[in-house]
Amino acid sequence: MELQLIDYFRQRIPQYPCVRLGIGDDAAIIDLDIPQCVVTTDILMDGVDFRLSEVTPEAIGRKALAVNLSDLAAMAASPKACVVGLVLPEKGGVEIAKRLYDGLLPLARDFQIAVAGGDTNSWEGPLVISVTAIGLPSPGGGLCRAGAKPGDRIIVTGDFGGSLLGKHLTFTPRVWEAIYLYRSYEIHAGIDVSDGLALDLWRLTVESRCGAVIQAEKVPISEASHRMVAQVKSRMKPLDHALHDGEDFELILAVPPAEAARMLRDQPLSVPLTDIGEFVPDRGLWLEKGKKRTPLEPKGYQHKFSL
Amino acid sequence: MELQLIDYFRQRIPQYPCVRLGIGDDAAIIDLDIPQCVVTTDILMDGVDFRLSEVTPEAIGRKALAVNLSDLAAMAASPKACVVGLVLPEKGGVEIAKRLYDGLLPLARDFQIAVAGGDTNSWEGPLVISVTAIGLPSPGGGLCRAGAKPGDRIIVTGDFGGSLLGKHLTFTPRVWEAIYLYRSYEIHAGIDVSDGLALDLWRLTVESRCGAVIQAEKVPISEASHRMVAQVKSRMKPLDHALHDGEDFELILAVPPAEAARMLRDQPLSVPLTDIGEFVPDRGLWLEKGKKRTPLEPKGYQHKFSL
Repeated sequence: MELQLIDYFRQRIPQYPCVRLGIGDDAAIIDLDIPQCVVTTDILMDGVDFRLSEVTPEAIGRKALAVNLSDLAAMAASPKACVVGLVLPEKGGVEIAKRLYDGLLPLARDFQIAVAGGDTNSWEGPLVISVTAIGLPSPGGGLCRAGAKPGDRIIVTGDFGGSLLGKHLTFTPRVWEAIYLYRSYEIHAGIDVSDGLALDLWRLTVESRCGAVIQAEKVPISEASHRMVAQVKSRMKPLDHALHDGEDFELILAVPPAEAARMLRDQPLSVPLTDIGEFVPDRGLWLEKGKKRTPLEPKGYQHKFSL
Repeated sequence: MELQLIDYFRQRIPQYPCVRLGIGDDAAIIDLDIPQCVVTTDILMDGVDFRLSEVTPEAIGRKALAVNLSDLAAMAASPKACVVGLVLPEKGGVEIAKRLYDGLLPLARDFQIAVAGGDTNSWEGPLVISVTAIGLPSPGGGLCRAGAKPGDRIIVTGDFGGSLLGKHLTFTPRVWEAIYLYRSYEIHAGIDVSDGLALDLWRLTVESRCGAVIQAEKVPISEASHRMVAQVKSRMKPLDHALHDGEDFELILAVPPAEAARMLRDQPLSVPLTDIGEFVPDRGLWLEKGKKRTPLEPKGYQHKFSL
């Protein structure tokens, strides 16, 4: 059954010229344009990153690739090839696998990333999908988390919060946006928001050895954040959702002030760019409301462990 | 807890010059020597590929990397970098993760492969470990499954069968052997034995559009195959274990007769090379005992699915 399934994928998965040797061998050979690559990996699990009982396999397959593309976007890297590891439930696994690919392949086509190989397994446990994406760095090495300087503006794409209401499955990874911005403006550092605006901004400041102040009234709060407040009936406000929900898969960029001003004047993307605050010399994270600055805890999604 | 664990890895994992940007960013940047790479991925799951209740996490971490190195060996590719995806049980996951790396890192050092990044998760399910390895193809493109020609000899490294008694955890991936042989002899095709000598040889013949005849008395049967017969009390004979057990992680090579003779005369490796038969024009797989040739079913490990 495993062999038939691999044959099925092989027929369905389009061939890309950069894949010299692809599915059906022990490993794939990828032609790159330069002697360097960017690599990132992400695993999604049923019950943690999605619920197979609540969402379609197509949406899961799409998300598994999209989160990796978002990591490439965080580096301003261009997608080249990916490999897909599946751990399928024995019962119904073949159908699930086909539908995962039905969701993954259109996104792969949109972002010109070849599916070069994979590993297909079954077990009695829940669905696990692991994607590793390979890309090419932007000329100049690309963005990374280190490099933000005090005085840099905090520029973000899109809006934040409430992604559980849909965006966590349907988001567009900011790949082309990141490449365009990195080529067109001076950008010191960048990260994508997977675990929360506050947490991921804090991660960027840690690598850049600085701090950051978010101006509360400037944070672009999604319409979904407001809906979350209405639906969930917790004590959280829309701003809290925007700061801490995560899975927005937008970009946070550290941009020198003059370049930031030019960027905001140009608004060169179809998604809005917003200045939400400033990087500062002191380590830490603060939220500024009016003139009042209070420490902001970098909450967000973290995997839990017990002893 | 997740962040502390990533910090722990970051301190323990040695830095390699080829990793321009490693753990702690959204993706890793790898310097390659040529504008091409080989990529392979494998996922191991508790209860399928190992039992966490029966083996040490160190052995599992080692195996997760070793199976990927064996795939690189099958292509005669040289290891460069890998990324490690972990899905850890919430309970005890931190300790397990540290011990997985304690097993993985020494093997990585032996094979000069950098650990460039990963993804660390927890859940209430069993342990899953996914490794993706990146290598450089040998000059000339490297081995693949296609290319065996009728008349080529079937050359194998090492011996086969009974790997469950230990070798499936302790095997040495034939990386240096493959690179040396590919550089020193004309070799038409190759594969590593993960799922069984018969099944993987059959896979090679499928890609090469030919068949193969194994001479029963020439198959190097491991001592463990004999022990399996003694212990398991099934109807299987030592030869059956050698042909079908799998997880030997030895190489099968298709070598033109004169080159095969030279290889066997030289015996250039510390592990024996054995000629076990011949590739033939007719599609299929046969076992020859004395003068009698019977079809050989390509049994071996396949993942199961039900509707």
